[in-house]
Amino acid sequence: MAKTDTGCKTNSGRFFEDFRPGETLVHATPRTATSGDQALYTALYGSRFALNSADSFAQGLGLARAPLDDLLVFHLVFGKSVPDISLNAVANLGYADGRFLLPVFPGDSLTAVSKVIGRKENSSGKTGTVYVETTGHNQRGEAVLRYTRWVMVHKRDAGSAAPEPVVPSLPDAISADQLIVPENMVGKDYDTTLSGSPHLWEGYSAGEKIDHVDGMTIEEAEHQLATRLYHNTARVHFNQHAESGGRFGKRIVYGGHVISIARALSFNGLANALNVAAINGGRHCNPTFGGDTIYAWSEVLDSAAIPARNDIGALRLRTVATKNRPCQDHPFADSEGRIDPATVLELDYWVLMPRR
Amino acid sequence: MAKTDTGCKTNSGRFFEDFRPGETLVHATPRTATSGDQALYTALYGSRFALNSADSFAQGLGLARAPLDDLLVFHLVFGKSVPDISLNAVANLGYADGRFLLPVFPGDSLTAVSKVIGRKENSSGKTGTVYVETTGHNQRGEAVLRYTRWVMVHKRDAGSAAPEPVVPSLPDAISADQLIVPENMVGKDYDTTLSGSPHLWEGYSAGEKIDHVDGMTIEEAEHQLATRLYHNTARVHFNQHAESGGRFGKRIVYGGHVISIARALSFNGLANALNVAAINGGRHCNPTFGGDTIYAWSEVLDSAAIPARNDIGALRLRTVATKNRPCQDHPFADSEGRIDPATVLELDYWVLMPRR
Amino acid sequence: MAKTDTGCKTNSGRFFEDFRPGETLVHATPRTATSGDQALYTALYGSRFALNSADSFAQGLGLARAPLDDLLVFHLVFGKSVPDISLNAVANLGYADGRFLLPVFPGDSLTAVSKVIGRKENSSGKTGTVYVETTGHNQRGEAVLRYTRWVMVHKRDAGSAAPEPVVPSLPDAISADQLIVPENMVGKDYDTTLSGSPHLWEGYSAGEKIDHVDGMTIEEAEHQLATRLYHNTARVHFNQHAESGGRFGKRIVYGGHVISIARALSFNGLANALNVAAINGGRHCNPTFGGDTIYAWSEVLDSAAIPARNDIGALRLRTVATKNRPCQDHPFADSEGRIDPATVLELDYWVLMPRR
Repeated sequence: MAKTDTGCKTNSGRFFEDFRPGETLVHATPRTATSGDQALYTALYGSRFALNSADSFAQGLGLARAPLDDLLVFHLVFGKSVPDISLNAVANLGYADGRFLLPVFPGDSLTAVSKVIGRKENSSGKTGTVYVETTGHNQRGEAVLRYTRWVMVHKRDAGSAAPEPVVPSLPDAISADQLIVPENMVGKDYDTTLSGSPHLWEGYSAGEKIDHVDGMTIEEAEHQLATRLYHNTARVHFNQHAESGGRFGKRIVYGGHVISIARALSFNGLANALNVAAINGGRHCNPTFGGDTIYAWSEVLDSAAIPARNDIGALRLRTVATKNRPCQDHPFADSEGRIDPATVLELDYWVLMPRR
Repeated sequence: MAKTDTGCKTNSGRFFEDFRPGETLVHATPRTATSGDQALYTALYGSRFALNSADSFAQGLGLARAPLDDLLVFHLVFGKSVPDISLNAVANLGYADGRFLLPVFPGDSLTAVSKVIGRKENSSGKTGTVYVETTGHNQRGEAVLRYTRWVMVHKRDAGSAAPEPVVPSLPDAISADQLIVPENMVGKDYDTTLSGSPHLWEGYSAGEKIDHVDGMTIEEAEHQLATRLYHNTARVHFNQHAESGGRFGKRIVYGGHVISIARALSFNGLANALNVAAINGGRHCNPTFGGDTIYAWSEVLDSAAIPARNDIGALRLRTVATKNRPCQDHPFADSEGRIDPATVLELDYWVLMPRR
Repeated sequence: MAKTDTGCKTNSGRFFEDFRPGETLVHATPRTATSGDQALYTALYGSRFALNSADSFAQGLGLARAPLDDLLVFHLVFGKSVPDISLNAVANLGYADGRFLLPVFPGDSLTAVSKVIGRKENSSGKTGTVYVETTGHNQRGEAVLRYTRWVMVHKRDAGSAAPEPVVPSLPDAISADQLIVPENMVGKDYDTTLSGSPHLWEGYSAGEKIDHVDGMTIEEAEHQLATRLYHNTARVHFNQHAESGGRFGKRIVYGGHVISIARALSFNGLANALNVAAINGGRHCNPTFGGDTIYAWSEVLDSAAIPARNDIGALRLRTVATKNRPCQDHPFADSEGRIDPATVLELDYWVLMPRR
């Protein structure tokens, strides 16, 4: 037994060479989500979607009580995967094929597992891209969320040979017939006064663009509180002493924090977007830092009926978030596809919305 | 169906012309208050009043468990009214005629409704004052809180004709016989060791002034967390990017945040002020900003018995909060009524306190 | 009855002369600990120890549900003692003889009582050291935590005569046979995948040093939220207006905040240190301020079996925390015992860890 520090007991994270397609990684630490987590989520983002805000409103829709915000569940599951997947990540490149499968209620205990579904060395020979499919489960072993993400990870040894590339085939989008309406949830008799907007599913159509108007300034304490709440341990978010000598000279805000701000801002224009049913794709176009003010706008990419349902429909949205730049002119990319430099997030996702 | 943003789906708030005396506004978003909200409230203000702090103490007074802090309930109800009342407010001018009618317990779902009870155009022709009476209800439809506030709101069109002024008659103060002692609450066998002070109702008399000594510095992250927790969406609190070009060059702290700091500071001198029973009046004399340190002092304005109760009495207090100025000399207004420039809050309210 | 402020209703704290060996101080304010407090604790420190994180994991060990983090309980009990013990403290000098006696679960109501067990005037004649033994109880009157601390307190009157010194005899360390394993907790069938590390009790031995690698930057909002959550009222933590003219020109971080950061960082290397069973000693070597980045390392001081248990063992650890200095070379004290100036905390404690 070593008497001095060998470094072997601390987690140095996995490098590109460590990921073998087909392997399964069971993540630590199980986490019981509570009404305390939901209160913090509300304080961090000000989210006002009625389904998650009040037991009474959720009961009016047929649920036993208010489920936790979908993105809170996403962050909790994502956070568990960080120590095994992205501790040595250079960048979180994208998300795809994400579906919310079951609502999570206060008191549910979440665990997460990831399957390595691809890897491809980059031409530099110093990094590679790793693809993982991550699933969150509740204490009954039921899957509550599944999504794919890919990250750029450092190689341990730049001299190691490039492995055979394996790149998964990922859908451009979840099809509407794969979207899951939470069990017992009924969109009839939906109260648009209490929900905050009269605009229901029929009121939105593809091509419509909505500026969410408001801006939210991020404080260092806020994103740190959020990121720790999610058990996300990526070092760039917490250590100013180290980051002051790093790439940007400052801590980087967890990309998921920006996703939740954008979703909360989107209430102003999309108040009846009850819940997030699927994540078709997403990417963090630029880093965000403490002191930045986030704005957002959305485009309706598609509107789809849910099979056998006349009470609830689905909208496919692209929400774009910017920093320090209002969105009345819907900034995103120019005609050559160059991303507007103020853009920090593009998220392509399905929401469920009651019908008239 | 519009294919581009018409702005019609976002809430641009109501302007002076939109408020019609007699109309009722039902506010979005219902909100279940939980022990998570109470924990955040404690972290934000450090409030130590024993009734709200411990189930065991509340049970000793005859309640089923600890109710939520009265001012947390006030903020939650107030927050709901902001998108309909004060999104375009120039200033929150005052409060009156407020009564706490029923305790709110963790798990209760709150909704809010406001009645427009007055409006009067200002001489500038650009703004007007709107008076609303706001009521919070629990999930059983019982009123838990009712108060009046008035705000200065922009006109949509400076050229529109001034409407007939309607100014409600508001009481200077709630009379003591209208104060409500929470059902089953008994002040006998009250434990002054656990409550933190031996000074009971008989120990205070009109004219007494108490410097609450301590100061609390407000961080931007703190007031943002609080204000989002309350679903208060007023833009001046959150958007440094826009406010840097605004009136003060910085975000303004929600006035209610200062009220809660002052109430928490008042524990030091008024530890047995079990709960807030009524708000007679209040005004935010000056804006508060991140970085300001709040101090407070109180004057006992009146001491009143509660009809048919010899266990609990009432104290009418004026609590004054200042920024960056200690209160040992009880600053407020000079002999001509000019408010001390460091003063940020005057709150006139009734508290209940056990008797000997 | 005084009509003007006499200062008598506010708590000016106790001075050295006020502490009489043998006296018992019952502290205000009882406090129900909830899942909201635990959520805030997670957000403040990112603690990932599985026992406190998930009901499902705690149930796998035989408990009814996840207990609150031991150090959260410590801070809640400590906070209660501040108004009576250390409001006029110059410094919190040390801890000893601390044992966690019973787990605390969400919903339990905590109270605290302290016994004065010693006092000794300092040679300056201006201050003295006071020793107190503080016990936390739950709502059933069961002791959940007991520890001794000593603080340097101002004399009220520098001219008062020095009392007969009483210095308690304190153990260097709790012996392993005095450590309490929570009732029903069984370390067999412990899941090291979910807990986050394969290293169990047998894997650690005396003399081993572990750098916990990560650093955590403290924001002013964070330590203020934490310290208020604990009802700790010591003024130096909250009032920038006063502190800007004080010893350091800035607010001082509550030492317990640093303890919790260090414990959370220690997960990386000590993930199976299920709970803190005892505090043998501790001291805050230097003050910590907002903006400082905390690092930590630990040395295994001892490894001990628990009598009659082959499923759980104990490790005695010394965890050292530094500010703005990584710990790969295990900084602490030089050969003459001079503390490294970057060192802010030394904590000597016992943890329980499952055996193979």
